[in-house]
Formats: sequence, C-alpha cells, structure tokens
Amino acid sequence: MTTRQESEGRLATLLSYDCWSLLETAHIARLGWLGPDGVAIVPVNYTVVAGAVWFRTTADSTLARQCRDQRVVVEVDQIDPTTRAGWSVVVVGTAELVEAQDVPDMLIGLEVWPTGSRTLFVRVDVHEVTGRRLYGVNGD
Amino acid sequence: MTTRQESEGRLATLLSYDCWSLLETAHIARLGWLGPDGVAIVPVNYTVVAGAVWFRTTADSTLARQCRDQRVVVEVDQIDPTTRAGWSVVVVGTAELVEAQDVPDMLIGLEVWPTGSRTLFVRVDVHEVTGRRLYGVNGD
Repeated sequence: MTTRQESEGRLATLLSYDCWSLLETAHIARLGWLGPDGVAIVPVNYTVVAGAVWFRTTADSTLARQCRDQRVVVEVDQIDPTTRAGWSVVVVGTAELVEAQDVPDMLIGLEVWPTGSRTLFVRVDVHEVTGRRLYGVNGD
Repeated sequence: MTTRQESEGRLATLLSYDCWSLLETAHIARLGWLGPDGVAIVPVNYTVVAGAVWFRTTADSTLARQCRDQRVVVEVDQIDPTTRAGWSVVVVGTAELVEAQDVPDMLIGLEVWPTGSRTLFVRVDVHEVTGRRLYGVNGD
C-alpha cells in the first residue's frame, strides 16, 4: 500500500497502451514544429483514429504550409491544480496533409471549436509515444 | 451587443497586457525548444516575475543542458471543454540559467509539483508575447 507521503509528487512513466488511452480522453493538444523562425507551438483540437493523431486546419494556414511531411510533436496533458495529479503524453510523428475527400468517414465529424472552414486534415503518423503520470496529494 | 450566434467560436487577438494578466493566472506551461533530435515539448510549473517567465529544473536535466541561451517557446492555455471558451498565450524568448542564490527572493518559493531537487532556475527573457481568446457557447 502506498501512503500519501510516498506517492505525492511522484512521476511515473506510462506504458504506451496507457498513453493511447489517455490521448482518447482529451480534446486539445499542443502541436509543435520547426518553422522558419524556430520552434512554433499552437493548440489544436485533435482526435485519435487507428493509431494516428488527426486534426483539421485551413488550406492556407501557417501550420499547413510549414508542417507538411515534417517531424512534429503533439503534447497533451491534464493536470488538476487542486490535487496536483495528472498526466502528460508526447507524440512524435510525421505530419501528412490529407484532403477531406480522402479521410476515413469517422473523421468528417471531427469538431474544431474556433469557427472557420477547415477543409484540410492533418494526419500525424506516429513514431514514438511517451508519457508520465504525476501523483497528487491524495495518491491518485 | 454580441449575440450568441455571432461570437461563438470566434478567435480574437489578445493585447499584450491581457496576455500577461492571463499568464499570471495559470500554473502549467508547455516549454518548447529545439533539441538535437528536433523539437521537444515538456510541461513545467512556471511563474511570472517582473516581465520574465521563470521555472525550475534539476541541474542535469535535458532541459537545462539543451535550453541554455537558446530560443524557447512557452505556451499556456486554458480552454473549457464544456463552454469551449478559453485562451492561449505564446511567449518567445531566450532561456537563461540562474543559480538559486542569484534569483530574486520572491522566486525561492516557486513550487514544482513533481518531487525532486530542482536547484536550477531558468529565466525566459521575453522577446514576444502573443495570445488569442476563443469565445464559447455563451459568448464569454
């Protein structure tokens, strides 16, 4: 049995399976890539389908122009500021641009919270998934 | 008066002043930098003191070794999945490593939620701050 004192603040490495399960529970990722001015990070709505991370963008977005066929990083976390418990998952992969007519049917409904016509899909083909769990004040 | 239909999902650019105010309300940032394998992103506890973003790390961390004097990106966001309202702020700056004895007194108490001895402080000298607000389903 782990006492509160032992577990609080402990960081544990997550199994790949658990990383994927957690990725399916969240809505917002931070996408990072190397642009012409250096590292860029933007929050995006995303979803996971068949082992790839997907999001939508506009055809002329900075993201679409700069990420095509590039190495990208997708970071997702949920950390409760009260209990200080949570997790973070980092996906490294390659961003492939996919036109709307070529995406799996289940992706057509992928919601993007900001308004605007986002006809271009980005599929991140995953090379690596890592994650950590932070144990909080009540041991959760 | 803005109706619900007009504002929902609208993205508005934040003034620099508002970006700083919002940065002072959150606890977790995502730090991005260019490492030897490409872009890296990790979540960190942070605070803002006198126009700089500060966080703590261990002296031998990957972050400490790779970020010294480098351009870094600090991304902070808070988006409510129910109302879909929120904001994101991105800071671009240069990471300077500072030993504990050389930091302003008010920083000694900067909390880091994971356990471990984090004796090294990182000060991000800010070059640029940008942010956006996302209006949610109730116009907030």
